[in-house]
Amino acid sequence: MSDKNPYAQTPEPPYYAVIFTSLRNEGDDGYAQTAERMMELAARQEGFLGAESVRDGLGITVSYWRDRDSIARWKADMEHREAQRLGREKWYRSYRIRIAKVEEERHFG
Amino acid sequence: MSDKNPYAQTPEPPYYAVIFTSLRNEGDDGYAQTAERMMELAARQEGFLGAESVRDGLGITVSYWRDRDSIARWKADMEHREAQRLGREKWYRSYRIRIAKVEEERHFG
Repeated sequence: MSDKNPYAQTPEPPYYAVIFTSLRNEGDDGYAQTAERMMELAARQEGFLGAESVRDGLGITVSYWRDRDSIARWKADMEHREAQRLGREKWYRSYRIRIAKVEEERHFG
Repeated sequence: MSDKNPYAQTPEPPYYAVIFTSLRNEGDDGYAQTAERMMELAARQEGFLGAESVRDGLGITVSYWRDRDSIARWKADMEHREAQRLGREKWYRSYRIRIAKVEEERHFG
């Protein structure tokens, strides 16, 4: 992990979180490059507020969005849709996606 | 990571998620034992639905709850309050806590 701030700089609630929990298949098979590209693309989407991500076997990525419309537009993005298809075909053994409205945020440190 | 299912077995939405993102201080200093105890205690709380957790430098733990009352009761639990105090004093460099209402859940695999 680099020394840069790993926390998303989110605004005052309410806003939305997409909690993406996943298990990968063995091997990279183009995954890392696509994952990096998707993070770049997501960061340019209107309504994207930031993301926090860790993997150690299980992966958890939480991305934050202004509203559900922003999430729906990102889900429908053509390049992202192709990545989603490849994800189910090659990269992910399984995943869970939960869309949640953040009502409260507290900070320490 | 063990082979057991790492996903929380959550019910149909709506329910709540507590997204806890953290950076640790160096050294254990009683952390692992308390973290294990807190997971046991949380699992016995009324309204607890499960949790997903990963750390690799940054830690993300998402715990799932039936409603905000369940979350408030767990936050106020005396043994948990003491652990929260020690967390701020010794174990965590920083953290973010976000309380969010899960509106939608999708599965693959």
